[in-house]
Amino acid sequence: MKANSIIALLYGPDQPGLVSRVSSWIFLCGSNIVHADQHEDPEAGIFFQRIEWIPSGQIDEEAASFEKFASKELGMTAKVAQSTDRPKVALFVSKIDHCFHDTILRFRSGEMSGELACIISNHEALAEEAARYNLPFFHVPVTKTNKAEAEAEQLRIVHEQDISLIVMARYMQVLSNDFLNGAGCPVINIHHSFLPAFAGGKPYHQAHNRGVKLIGATAHYATADLDEGPIIHQDVTRINHRNSVPDLVRKGKDLEKSVFAQAIRLHLDNRILVYNNKTVVFD
Amino acid sequence: MKANSIIALLYGPDQPGLVSRVSSWIFLCGSNIVHADQHEDPEAGIFFQRIEWIPSGQIDEEAASFEKFASKELGMTAKVAQSTDRPKVALFVSKIDHCFHDTILRFRSGEMSGELACIISNHEALAEEAARYNLPFFHVPVTKTNKAEAEAEQLRIVHEQDISLIVMARYMQVLSNDFLNGAGCPVINIHHSFLPAFAGGKPYHQAHNRGVKLIGATAHYATADLDEGPIIHQDVTRINHRNSVPDLVRKGKDLEKSVFAQAIRLHLDNRILVYNNKTVVFD
Amino acid sequence: MKANSIIALLYGPDQPGLVSRVSSWIFLCGSNIVHADQHEDPEAGIFFQRIEWIPSGQIDEEAASFEKFASKELGMTAKVAQSTDRPKVALFVSKIDHCFHDTILRFRSGEMSGELACIISNHEALAEEAARYNLPFFHVPVTKTNKAEAEAEQLRIVHEQDISLIVMARYMQVLSNDFLNGAGCPVINIHHSFLPAFAGGKPYHQAHNRGVKLIGATAHYATADLDEGPIIHQDVTRINHRNSVPDLVRKGKDLEKSVFAQAIRLHLDNRILVYNNKTVVFD
Amino acid sequence: MKANSIIALLYGPDQPGLVSRVSSWIFLCGSNIVHADQHEDPEAGIFFQRIEWIPSGQIDEEAASFEKFASKELGMTAKVAQSTDRPKVALFVSKIDHCFHDTILRFRSGEMSGELACIISNHEALAEEAARYNLPFFHVPVTKTNKAEAEAEQLRIVHEQDISLIVMARYMQVLSNDFLNGAGCPVINIHHSFLPAFAGGKPYHQAHNRGVKLIGATAHYATADLDEGPIIHQDVTRINHRNSVPDLVRKGKDLEKSVFAQAIRLHLDNRILVYNNKTVVFD
Repeated sequence: MKANSIIALLYGPDQPGLVSRVSSWIFLCGSNIVHADQHEDPEAGIFFQRIEWIPSGQIDEEAASFEKFASKELGMTAKVAQSTDRPKVALFVSKIDHCFHDTILRFRSGEMSGELACIISNHEALAEEAARYNLPFFHVPVTKTNKAEAEAEQLRIVHEQDISLIVMARYMQVLSNDFLNGAGCPVINIHHSFLPAFAGGKPYHQAHNRGVKLIGATAHYATADLDEGPIIHQDVTRINHRNSVPDLVRKGKDLEKSVFAQAIRLHLDNRILVYNNKTVVFD
Repeated sequence: MKANSIIALLYGPDQPGLVSRVSSWIFLCGSNIVHADQHEDPEAGIFFQRIEWIPSGQIDEEAASFEKFASKELGMTAKVAQSTDRPKVALFVSKIDHCFHDTILRFRSGEMSGELACIISNHEALAEEAARYNLPFFHVPVTKTNKAEAEAEQLRIVHEQDISLIVMARYMQVLSNDFLNGAGCPVINIHHSFLPAFAGGKPYHQAHNRGVKLIGATAHYATADLDEGPIIHQDVTRINHRNSVPDLVRKGKDLEKSVFAQAIRLHLDNRILVYNNKTVVFD
Repeated sequence: MKANSIIALLYGPDQPGLVSRVSSWIFLCGSNIVHADQHEDPEAGIFFQRIEWIPSGQIDEEAASFEKFASKELGMTAKVAQSTDRPKVALFVSKIDHCFHDTILRFRSGEMSGELACIISNHEALAEEAARYNLPFFHVPVTKTNKAEAEAEQLRIVHEQDISLIVMARYMQVLSNDFLNGAGCPVINIHHSFLPAFAGGKPYHQAHNRGVKLIGATAHYATADLDEGPIIHQDVTRINHRNSVPDLVRKGKDLEKSVFAQAIRLHLDNRILVYNNKTVVFD
Repeated sequence: MKANSIIALLYGPDQPGLVSRVSSWIFLCGSNIVHADQHEDPEAGIFFQRIEWIPSGQIDEEAASFEKFASKELGMTAKVAQSTDRPKVALFVSKIDHCFHDTILRFRSGEMSGELACIISNHEALAEEAARYNLPFFHVPVTKTNKAEAEAEQLRIVHEQDISLIVMARYMQVLSNDFLNGAGCPVINIHHSFLPAFAGGKPYHQAHNRGVKLIGATAHYATADLDEGPIIHQDVTRINHRNSVPDLVRKGKDLEKSVFAQAIRLHLDNRILVYNNKTVVFD
């Protein structure tokens, strides 16, 4: 039986003694560090740390106390979580279902440190499948003229469901800047190319036309600039001249599922810090 | 002892019976096919074939006879080679030496079906190293004002040395369209990114700035459009947030060497056909 | 709309003119080859071919006629299939469900050229899940004393359901030689290691103990010698000293799913020939 | 200009406060941590740490002082090095030359934090090549009857040359336990298979016979049990039914070079700790 732990993600201006001050604070609590990783970006002068420990005292108090210490005394931005947290996740989807099934099955298997709370879709295609999984399904149609209203409705659901993470499993709509700001939580997207190659629409067609010998998939945080957000994870697979666009689609599906899942897992395990449109991934 | 073989690379408009007619021609000669691979591009309506056989008769005659058959009777473009051919290769280099050493050592080890005939460089930095390998070294300085004369001199050497393939081992100059047309032979370049991502200069800096999680290398035939030629081979390796630009350079070197070498080997083994700015690689 | 095609898998003693005779037979029918690949094993003196063509005449007749030609006139062993064939597949499973879900979803998505006919399990754990997918589920308990009867019952189901391929999705029982002989169809197993490393039980524990830096998965045809059958496909993923056995299990699941699926797909696409306990895979 | 740093590799029984005590010691010196990574093996109860810092005071004194602190006050085994250290390396080789050239060129390019001091070989085949690189070459013939004397002579050279690391670049002799004990420094070997698969002789032949779909290479510390030492690094590459043993040899060369080089670099960068016949690699 694994003991419950506190996980802190810290970042801020680099300064002498940060590692020492953080670890000493925990040691003086009588608590036991089980994982610690840090990174300094010498150009940006920023310090990053992920530290996980088994608290000696009452876990909520020690977590709150650390957060205060980190922000007040160290001047760091701190996100403090507990290993038992199960943040709620909303899955956005259209009609394509491979990432949909894969993500749901991984949550069900216990692979993800979170709870898949609901499905939101602009189509009804996957409503029945969602029902089979006993997952709430919200159909929010999006047309050329109702985008603002649709996003308002999506935001309403996101807030009502108390969502902490949105994941876009091949959701075929661009989310507006207003939506991203209004959501108040990170959004992870899976793009079916090795970004920055083949941004935009129909990346497998683009790859086929260019004659590349590898295709890729990229999971990134969504930002207002489509396909330009901080990259979390990427992978590629080999193709050859025999492969048609449908072959690329088939091969790419496995990449998309695996890359998307790893990004979600890393996020829910509190392993990612974002700065300068890049990610630090404490894997 | 492996018998000498004839290798034909054919392509042209698809038509019924091509496989049958080619293989029957060889069978009727009493010769023995040892490798055959073909590809049809249904969109373009083009047929491609690589076929290798042990001739029953005099090898030069059978090769010449097949070439005539393929072009006259089948209406195909045919390149016919022999397994004992050792086409001459010129290696273009500047100051960076990892692909230089790697390529030379592979030719010396017998891994390549060709002869490394000479080194051509815009710098003298590697002249001594070339001498250690007993390789002719031609220093052709390139300045902002003498590019046309320099290329004329390079072409003179290429023709004098009877070169059949030029390979650019991190040669830091763009070859003009005039040079490429004048050379009368293919030119293989190694670019230190996963094209089409990070074309142009300083790709490792570009990759670092974008925060990608994989870096790549691409070997392609050089065309007038820089970094836009037909891709022969690509590979990638994983990086993380700890890796600085010098780390990417170090990791990238191994990729560049391996991708470049495989492209040269595939070309010299007569395994590549080019069409529509893509390659068919019969590997 | 893709035209229906005939696919032939041939093998037998190498002899001059095989490629020519096969392709000419098809050409003389007025039919059109769409894919052809061959391989000679010079040590064993065996010729292998996969050839696919669009018949000009009635497809059943042309297929039967070719089979006769191949066996009678060429003396080759021939398996002749049609692109519209949907052979029935039985999935054997115990309690572990990742390959179970993955395989079912791939059949449902149309990725596989076959029909998933039923689930056979020694446990009831996945009965409900099978029902959700509307798949017949046969519970055949296996104990220390009833193995022969259990296998007899499994064979009865396999024959009753007209099964052409059995796939073992982490089925935790060894199938006896009698079962394999009685089934009358190939059996594909997924083993969670890079064979021949870590054959037998608990391969992730073995890998963790040995301190390897990569873990693997292997799909192979089952034979009486456990984990010794002809290998179809393998893949690996990187691990490090931080990874515990449960981490290996999690990482390995993705490998197992992907390797298993590719082996099943290659088999159902008639791309595999077996000889000397090895496979020729015409990919 | 990068400042010189101190690197400490620590391990010993896990105890509360280790991270804090180590980082506080450095902080109280007024020094600045630039890298820190740690690992706990919960089963073995062992704590491992790599920590690198820019000393505020005189570097030799601070290094010595830390070593005393770690062993005396923390009860840890500590190896303390400096980033400017250039330990001497001896390269053992027979006739096969790809790892020989590759390793030498990497040392010459500055990729390795060490000095390649000499070549020791049981054959004269590479004497001239070593001379071209201006490297001392010691020919120590090994026969069936003189093994003990030959090893004594090798040890004499190793000690005379003040060697801190021996690397076996496809040296085709097994080193005895006496040699390994007498050398007083680690020995890194490259084995041309994915261990534990295909240990022993002719691994590419073994791989070909078994019909695997990937071949590998493994760098490990040499121990008295051949091919059983702690694994440092491994990699694999894909093969298919067309590949003969010479193809595996050619493909394997690139693997061997790259895996061997990475193991040597990791060792010289003080990134490896060994315990329980495994390695912790702080990469």
